[in-house]
Amino acid sequence: MPGYTVTVTVRLKEGVLDPEAETTQRALERLGFEIADLRSADQFELDLTAGDADSARQRAEEMTERLLANPTIHDYELAVDER
Amino acid sequence: MPGYTVTVTVRLKEGVLDPEAETTQRALERLGFEIADLRSADQFELDLTAGDADSARQRAEEMTERLLANPTIHDYELAVDER
Repeated sequence: MPGYTVTVTVRLKEGVLDPEAETTQRALERLGFEIADLRSADQFELDLTAGDADSARQRAEEMTERLLANPTIHDYELAVDER
Repeated sequence: MPGYTVTVTVRLKEGVLDPEAETTQRALERLGFEIADLRSADQFELDLTAGDADSARQRAEEMTERLLANPTIHDYELAVDER
């Protein structure tokens, strides 16, 4: 079966407070950088084998909904690449 | 001045242990998923204004080297989009 790498990007939904990003932004400003906004996200690269790209995406989506993201506070997007 | 969003992806260099990724992979396997490998990365989206895309990239690169990444253990890549 072909191998795929699915990149899962997990972001906080708009309106959810992100203290890590705020702290990072303030630290950069203290170093003299000007930034209008800073958002942070977690990325997971999953290597898996699957019959085709669609089923790789579907399996990665199940993993994301079961474990990687919390649907109450997170949005996520998936990108599938053959490897 | 035009506004840019620079997406900075910070990954552990190959060979650097990633206990968070290992724990996540094991948790997914306990849920019944098969994965060949899992890698984690941090992503920062920086909104800033700059004269052009090149200078936006250069400023983001300075921020990354000063604060967002540790060159001893991290590799990083930047993507610049006009917003």
